[in-house]
Amino acid sequence: MNTRPTLLPGSTAATSLKQLRLSAPLVHCLTNDVVQSFTANILLALGASPAMVVDPAEAAQFSAIADALLVNVGTLTRPHADAMLAAVHAADLAGKPWVLDPVAVGGLSWRTEFCLELITLKPAAIRGNASEILALSGLSGSGRGVDSGDDSLSALPAAQQLARNTGAIVAVTGETDYVTDGERSRAVAGGHPMMTRIVGTGCALSAVVAAFVALPGDRLDNVAAACRVMSCAGERACAAVNGPGSFTPQFLDNLYLIDEQWLNGEGMQ
Amino acid sequence: MNTRPTLLPGSTAATSLKQLRLSAPLVHCLTNDVVQSFTANILLALGASPAMVVDPAEAAQFSAIADALLVNVGTLTRPHADAMLAAVHAADLAGKPWVLDPVAVGGLSWRTEFCLELITLKPAAIRGNASEILALSGLSGSGRGVDSGDDSLSALPAAQQLARNTGAIVAVTGETDYVTDGERSRAVAGGHPMMTRIVGTGCALSAVVAAFVALPGDRLDNVAAACRVMSCAGERACAAVNGPGSFTPQFLDNLYLIDEQWLNGEGMQ
Amino acid sequence: MNTRPTLLPGSTAATSLKQLRLSAPLVHCLTNDVVQSFTANILLALGASPAMVVDPAEAAQFSAIADALLVNVGTLTRPHADAMLAAVHAADLAGKPWVLDPVAVGGLSWRTEFCLELITLKPAAIRGNASEILALSGLSGSGRGVDSGDDSLSALPAAQQLARNTGAIVAVTGETDYVTDGERSRAVAGGHPMMTRIVGTGCALSAVVAAFVALPGDRLDNVAAACRVMSCAGERACAAVNGPGSFTPQFLDNLYLIDEQWLNGEGMQ
Repeated sequence: MNTRPTLLPGSTAATSLKQLRLSAPLVHCLTNDVVQSFTANILLALGASPAMVVDPAEAAQFSAIADALLVNVGTLTRPHADAMLAAVHAADLAGKPWVLDPVAVGGLSWRTEFCLELITLKPAAIRGNASEILALSGLSGSGRGVDSGDDSLSALPAAQQLARNTGAIVAVTGETDYVTDGERSRAVAGGHPMMTRIVGTGCALSAVVAAFVALPGDRLDNVAAACRVMSCAGERACAAVNGPGSFTPQFLDNLYLIDEQWLNGEGMQ
Repeated sequence: MNTRPTLLPGSTAATSLKQLRLSAPLVHCLTNDVVQSFTANILLALGASPAMVVDPAEAAQFSAIADALLVNVGTLTRPHADAMLAAVHAADLAGKPWVLDPVAVGGLSWRTEFCLELITLKPAAIRGNASEILALSGLSGSGRGVDSGDDSLSALPAAQQLARNTGAIVAVTGETDYVTDGERSRAVAGGHPMMTRIVGTGCALSAVVAAFVALPGDRLDNVAAACRVMSCAGERACAAVNGPGSFTPQFLDNLYLIDEQWLNGEGMQ
Repeated sequence: MNTRPTLLPGSTAATSLKQLRLSAPLVHCLTNDVVQSFTANILLALGASPAMVVDPAEAAQFSAIADALLVNVGTLTRPHADAMLAAVHAADLAGKPWVLDPVAVGGLSWRTEFCLELITLKPAAIRGNASEILALSGLSGSGRGVDSGDDSLSALPAAQQLARNTGAIVAVTGETDYVTDGERSRAVAGGHPMMTRIVGTGCALSAVVAAFVALPGDRLDNVAAACRVMSCAGERACAAVNGPGSFTPQFLDNLYLIDEQWLNGEGMQ
């Protein structure tokens, strides 16, 4: 029986962020071709350390060294899939957590099969939009491409089911983000519609989730904190700019500048 | 017998842009490694929806779902070429239009052969600089790498010939852009030399052309409208900034903000 | 016997920059997936011309046309390695200089072997951080991923050894950059810690080094000038911004605007 989602307290997000900056986790990103630079810059702005190592043998070697691994299937190819499997197995052997971003799963056949295989390999967290989480949980979504045709709250039961099936923390993101371990659930507000007009905000959030799952403490709260840090920096950036071009510099600056006051003082409903 | 190029009216460009925002076409981009993020952000800023799906089997599946396909050979590899051919055939079967950007054709042997094969597969539009259009039409250009050594007006006869040979709308872009169906031709002014100091403005224009060929109406005018929307947003951005770094945010903001007044009121000669 | 490093005079850097803008060298970049767009924009802002041609046969054809070649192993794969070897051999045959950026060498096995093979193929210059240069010289560093655990001065003897062994100019970069031909050495100050919070500043510097090794004159001074142009534009950008997001536009603008006065008047210690 699931409890109702509770709001993540700002102080909890602030504690996770403080730990992130102290430990500066090294995040191995196997992500799509479109968002590599943006993803790396998001992690660097926050104080984490990104690295992209993509050859299968090197990826396996590197996942054992890094603090966490991100697997994002946005531009999946056979060589990428080989590197991802090698890295996931190496991370598992080394006891390092890994995160799945199942981009466009449901709408495309091969990646759907591949992600259904991946979720049997003990991801620490899964971050997707409503359509993707519905598809991974075995229920059907209405996505076409990378955008979701469903809203995040309607996918919360699927997220809870997926969390129980896989042992992962599942984050289903949208206007409000919901994060669940299958029993407890957190709601994270904030963000802004303009964030959907920049490519990679969701993909970069998954990388930030990977950085936060490397932290000690309650993993559910750490994943919710990752969502809150991004939504808080994003809503502040949107309030200060005229369009999606000036959003990106402002968003990265905000991730660099964000502190406890920002997380405590505003934006949580 | 060709008529002389006529200027595209601002009101025609505005009508196409309005349709684009209403229909928000999903554009499947098989483009080069350098410009993926910029291309996606340009489409999102304008109100279209980009997606990059690159595995050959998935690319074929996705091209039948998307509203238009872009093929850009800038960083062509054998796996990319396989995905492009699969996607073009699937788009053709599904009745979806596709656009070719023949980057650096003429200067490099393999991509030249490959693009000569592609243009037999009924592209809806071809967008290139003067050297590229000259090379594709069988006439020789003077390009070295991705920059053109020829001016766009001198390549207009080649563009008209290429349009007649392929059935495509051909856009040859430069200080002034010329767009032709082989009989009728449109001239599009605007833009700014600083736009050549940012990578990907031409490649992104080809993606925007792909979004506009998905619209109903006169395809010649729609392709010319794509050129005009980009040149109008670009010249305004250049007027407001000191260098190519601040151009990019301003350009994306302008593509988000551009409206009928901008397109009617200025910049057409 | 090595002489002590001498500071690069601002006027020497200014002379090299003037030559760069006059000759606008075409730089063939075989670089990693993360920094392609940033690298191209850095070169364009400065007045050089970038091109990324990655298929092995085309890469070989293009390296004979271009003025210089960059090889960066950040996201090395087997197809990339094949293209790099083909391009290096073609550049060598055509008498064109090439530059190696040995990203994360030392920490990962395959790329370390590959780079040890590459340095036998007469690079004109090698640019890395202290850990990478130590690893290439046969001494051990303490890097983990792409960041250096060592400081640049401590790696100067290794850089001098590597320069003598390979015939390359070696730049070991950090808070202060050191550039050496094995006998003479130059020190280049400037830059700012915030530059480590943006992905690709080191990779882009290697591309700028490639542009500068295409110039006539003293190659040691030209490579040091490349380092100084970047550190000067970077420190000015950092002084004007609040975070890493607004750094990038400002940095590119500064590379576009930088002139003799900036290089002569400030920042050299």
